[in-house]
Amino acid sequence: MAGNTFGNIFKITTFGESHGEALGGVIDGCPSGIEIDLSLIRKDMQRRKPGQSAIVTQRKEEDEFQLLSGMFEGKTTGTPIGFIIPNTNQKSDDYSHIKNTYRPSHADFVYDKKYGFRDYRGGGRSSARETASRVLAGAIAKQIIPEITITAFVSSVGEIFIDKPYQDLDFSNIEANPVRCPDLLIAEKMESYIKEIKKNGDTVGGTITCVIQNVPIGLGEPVFDKLHAELGKAMLSINAVHGFEYGSGFCGAKMKGSVHNDAFNADGSTQTNLSGGIQGGISNGMDIYFRVAFKPVATLIQKQEVLTNTGELIVEQGKGRHDPCVVPRAVPIVEAMSALVLADYYLLNKIYQSK
Amino acid sequence: MAGNTFGNIFKITTFGESHGEALGGVIDGCPSGIEIDLSLIRKDMQRRKPGQSAIVTQRKEEDEFQLLSGMFEGKTTGTPIGFIIPNTNQKSDDYSHIKNTYRPSHADFVYDKKYGFRDYRGGGRSSARETASRVLAGAIAKQIIPEITITAFVSSVGEIFIDKPYQDLDFSNIEANPVRCPDLLIAEKMESYIKEIKKNGDTVGGTITCVIQNVPIGLGEPVFDKLHAELGKAMLSINAVHGFEYGSGFCGAKMKGSVHNDAFNADGSTQTNLSGGIQGGISNGMDIYFRVAFKPVATLIQKQEVLTNTGELIVEQGKGRHDPCVVPRAVPIVEAMSALVLADYYLLNKIYQSK
Amino acid sequence: MAGNTFGNIFKITTFGESHGEALGGVIDGCPSGIEIDLSLIRKDMQRRKPGQSAIVTQRKEEDEFQLLSGMFEGKTTGTPIGFIIPNTNQKSDDYSHIKNTYRPSHADFVYDKKYGFRDYRGGGRSSARETASRVLAGAIAKQIIPEITITAFVSSVGEIFIDKPYQDLDFSNIEANPVRCPDLLIAEKMESYIKEIKKNGDTVGGTITCVIQNVPIGLGEPVFDKLHAELGKAMLSINAVHGFEYGSGFCGAKMKGSVHNDAFNADGSTQTNLSGGIQGGISNGMDIYFRVAFKPVATLIQKQEVLTNTGELIVEQGKGRHDPCVVPRAVPIVEAMSALVLADYYLLNKIYQSK
Amino acid sequence: MAGNTFGNIFKITTFGESHGEALGGVIDGCPSGIEIDLSLIRKDMQRRKPGQSAIVTQRKEEDEFQLLSGMFEGKTTGTPIGFIIPNTNQKSDDYSHIKNTYRPSHADFVYDKKYGFRDYRGGGRSSARETASRVLAGAIAKQIIPEITITAFVSSVGEIFIDKPYQDLDFSNIEANPVRCPDLLIAEKMESYIKEIKKNGDTVGGTITCVIQNVPIGLGEPVFDKLHAELGKAMLSINAVHGFEYGSGFCGAKMKGSVHNDAFNADGSTQTNLSGGIQGGISNGMDIYFRVAFKPVATLIQKQEVLTNTGELIVEQGKGRHDPCVVPRAVPIVEAMSALVLADYYLLNKIYQSK
Repeated sequence: MAGNTFGNIFKITTFGESHGEALGGVIDGCPSGIEIDLSLIRKDMQRRKPGQSAIVTQRKEEDEFQLLSGMFEGKTTGTPIGFIIPNTNQKSDDYSHIKNTYRPSHADFVYDKKYGFRDYRGGGRSSARETASRVLAGAIAKQIIPEITITAFVSSVGEIFIDKPYQDLDFSNIEANPVRCPDLLIAEKMESYIKEIKKNGDTVGGTITCVIQNVPIGLGEPVFDKLHAELGKAMLSINAVHGFEYGSGFCGAKMKGSVHNDAFNADGSTQTNLSGGIQGGISNGMDIYFRVAFKPVATLIQKQEVLTNTGELIVEQGKGRHDPCVVPRAVPIVEAMSALVLADYYLLNKIYQSK
Repeated sequence: MAGNTFGNIFKITTFGESHGEALGGVIDGCPSGIEIDLSLIRKDMQRRKPGQSAIVTQRKEEDEFQLLSGMFEGKTTGTPIGFIIPNTNQKSDDYSHIKNTYRPSHADFVYDKKYGFRDYRGGGRSSARETASRVLAGAIAKQIIPEITITAFVSSVGEIFIDKPYQDLDFSNIEANPVRCPDLLIAEKMESYIKEIKKNGDTVGGTITCVIQNVPIGLGEPVFDKLHAELGKAMLSINAVHGFEYGSGFCGAKMKGSVHNDAFNADGSTQTNLSGGIQGGISNGMDIYFRVAFKPVATLIQKQEVLTNTGELIVEQGKGRHDPCVVPRAVPIVEAMSALVLADYYLLNKIYQSK
Repeated sequence: MAGNTFGNIFKITTFGESHGEALGGVIDGCPSGIEIDLSLIRKDMQRRKPGQSAIVTQRKEEDEFQLLSGMFEGKTTGTPIGFIIPNTNQKSDDYSHIKNTYRPSHADFVYDKKYGFRDYRGGGRSSARETASRVLAGAIAKQIIPEITITAFVSSVGEIFIDKPYQDLDFSNIEANPVRCPDLLIAEKMESYIKEIKKNGDTVGGTITCVIQNVPIGLGEPVFDKLHAELGKAMLSINAVHGFEYGSGFCGAKMKGSVHNDAFNADGSTQTNLSGGIQGGISNGMDIYFRVAFKPVATLIQKQEVLTNTGELIVEQGKGRHDPCVVPRAVPIVEAMSALVLADYYLLNKIYQSK
Repeated sequence: MAGNTFGNIFKITTFGESHGEALGGVIDGCPSGIEIDLSLIRKDMQRRKPGQSAIVTQRKEEDEFQLLSGMFEGKTTGTPIGFIIPNTNQKSDDYSHIKNTYRPSHADFVYDKKYGFRDYRGGGRSSARETASRVLAGAIAKQIIPEITITAFVSSVGEIFIDKPYQDLDFSNIEANPVRCPDLLIAEKMESYIKEIKKNGDTVGGTITCVIQNVPIGLGEPVFDKLHAELGKAMLSINAVHGFEYGSGFCGAKMKGSVHNDAFNADGSTQTNLSGGIQGGISNGMDIYFRVAFKPVATLIQKQEVLTNTGELIVEQGKGRHDPCVVPRAVPIVEAMSALVLADYYLLNKIYQSK
């Protein structure tokens, strides 16, 4: 109810504020007998971690995690996996200046109004640091469905975008550049642009495209829990996301049915895939792909007017170590949330397999 | 689990196939003592109904409903509201030709794969006829939160779109034209275009914009159940929807933070509203607005190749009475799903009000 | 949330008041492809129906049902099964005398306090008539798990009880007498006693024992959703139930571990079964058995003091057609609730079967 | 789904095996602004802790806990409260002898069958050590509903029982003796008996009675989520519980309605309280009371036949440090589970208070 749980069968519940003792959570509903490769978890955590390159925030967060339960002799036991990610580098005094003020386009104001007060240090619960728990859980979810491939990448930063279909991209380039854009020429432009933005103490938005391949036919629950509806919710729950489209997306709204319909091949696959791998809310075995829009980070290293809790507007100089552009670090988060949905719906679908 | 329930506190569970005896559902969690104006339900049902104008499907469906419980002396009792909407005009023989075939970009194929067989008449459970139950429930939800105003309208059909901010539109024009577009000049163009599309047996997509006003501050549950994440899921669960964006949406992904941030006024309202009335997943009291993309209807009155369940591709002439463009009739559905989310989150938020 | 849904995977949501237009509900999560024998549903409904013998209420309720969806060509389709059971014999004027009064040990008082007002006719939502929907759903649930046998019977009425273990009883006698007690000598005593109670306008309590056989090993979810915990909740949710014990039950609390432990056989079965077929909340393949205590029906055909909503105590003569003892008609309800739990946990357990 | 979460609004999810690194959990749905007295948590943890007296297990478990989130400046923030209870005194080698064997009336056998393998050390997830998390969460729940008083006590051990109504007992005696029995003469007998049982390496069952006072009218959700049904499930989910009865319980099944009905006083209270404070599943403001039956602990310090995973029966000498009787330490667990239900239903009921 209070919104800190995601999933139906494979469920994650997270807790933790950016400046508390630790983040963490519980993964419940993980099947037993799955060998968990911890290095794959670490790898995804590294991809999300601050300080990994010159274009992301230079905060130092080690993001070491401990799995406290649900594993025995390297395998899942079917019991809940509790985990913590200690907070080791919080500088709470950095934030005392925002104790009584609400920064524009942050959650400060609404948290105070909803809950009466708030842990103001570093955004508290509304900090994107919470996504570390999602990435950890997602890395476990991926290991439940190893045959399914989930690949996310940065498809635009500000006005700079990849103008090719994903089929023409070399996904092996994604991790070869700090932007996580598979088109290396575009990646370079993005990188320069982000550096320039950063120099000005400004921020910029961007989009991430995610492609999910080798999905079994039949995942997704009509009517309200369509596969793309759950994917959409998963993405929209990530900090800063303002939009989601799958398959033909908003472009599809401009098209005619005679052009949009995906003609069948004799084997049940389709010649085109404007449906984005999902029909009637259920996977049809074609690639699932979607695009996620991230607004620019609200924290600027510029002067801005903030509102005090006594109703005054005062000018403040933003400071701290923040991301000029969130999308490079959000790539593993998009993948993780995708993995959570796919693993959950994969398990859910087992109920309907032959009595 | 099986996906036919929506909501946390104010919950709707629907049932029914397009050609079964009846659609219907149960609304659970409706507070007691609310006087229900049945004419408001009827009005919304009329707006969704086939045959209401020349540009929508000419099927005859009366959409008479019966509330079977949960009401006493005109008021809700706090017990579940069961309802049915009998199917009165089904022509099942219309559909015998699709018994063994899968139409492109329909749910026929995936239902057969997932469930082993399907009720093939008229799309069965995947038919948009199911949305009649949503509109009914939404019309009740609206009466729980009468102070909140929900207004949806058609903002584009194919390439034709309204090029004004919603603040410059006269919402009283929406119901004054069959397209449900508040810009009457644009509405006329859309209408002509839909008629032309229809003449060709083709279909076209479109977008709907929804504006929710007078929302109390504090609705929305971090972390996974952000208000816009639930709205997004609600919209993406509607048949044919391929995209959702709120506030600055995909445009926001191109912007800089220094432009995107919504500066405060001293009263806590904001000077701009690129946040779309939601910050950190919680309503901030400003207008909530979002845009929903609908792909073109897949049923064409044209020749198309269909796949048989024995793996043959054969050419078939589409027939029947279908919508050339779904958005005019989807306006009340978007409103209904919005109302379900808002009523649910309104009730959920009462838990946090003063102990 | 509002309490009208039961189950996790195989879910039933019910609606309806005793004197509204109809009872009904939605069964969601029923697997596809199951042939439903309607006569088995009718048979269980008959066993619950008023007027079936001289020792139960003489109300006339036909309990005809309609399945409105989720079935095609005699088989389940995997989509929700909506159903209604019209109310055909309500005499609402019978109840006008209780409009402003609260009968002792009824739900009148608490409904008024909780909801502000109530549908006072025949108990409204608190009427045991609601259990007709449970019996219908349970009869469908039984057909999902045909290999599991569920047998309930009356084990005591007032002070009269069966003093044999269930293994010594002939279950084929259960339906051969109006009390549904398999020990025919005891059944006769019970029947006479109930008739005497009825003559006095009084009522009497009783217990039902339920035996569930041929249960696969492994059903039940630790920690909170132990199989017996869910069975207990299911039983306690039935009107008038005040107690639940399984296996050794309250007697077990008097025993020593050296006596209570169930020694293994080499095949994994146990020599005794004080565990009641469940260990650590998970079925172990032995018979599951439990006992359910029903308090006496609160409606008497005697003079009683009732409380008015203005705080006066007045004497009223009870009238109407009521059960002198509820257990004979509650036998199919106990079976139905057992079937709902078993079918649900059976489906839930499929998730853990070989990846 | 996987059973490690309890509650609707105020929700606890627990994790942890007896011999893993830590137990812990997440409390979600706790309202903001509640000052949490940590000493009250510690006090309840102490009451559950092993080694507290001569009649309980002499294991050393410190049960120190850490609250990792959801608190700021001593008050709850409305965000999830994550916590851990490190395991500090596990002796895993103690348990290597049960690696390949199934002890009678333990969960060893069913865990292996359900999950394919198990963490065999100390019972793993099926260990009652898990209840430490429940006690912690319950101690927080109590602070949400400080006006409600929850008092549990041992009402029988083996054949020794209190033969007075709870109204005649002095609850201040409960914590004055190691058995937690408020009748000091009976307590002494129980203590002697438990010591004798312990000397023989045997165990014995018992019952706990719980009285909940000062409950507001209106808590409880018809139809399936009746207050006593949820209390029953809560109790039955505690290790070793085999029975639950409330109000008149199993005795009520022997009574006549004319005796059982609780006559009203003019103020809405009742002269008797055989209803146990709940009518139609909803609290009526009178005391709620119920009784919980615990079977004897299955671990004996005696020779017993165990089953190997290769199907052999071998005799083994039980060893280790176990409770001869579980009820003294289960008193705070019964209170904690009661508090979880009451806090949850209290919050749930706020939804129905004046729109």
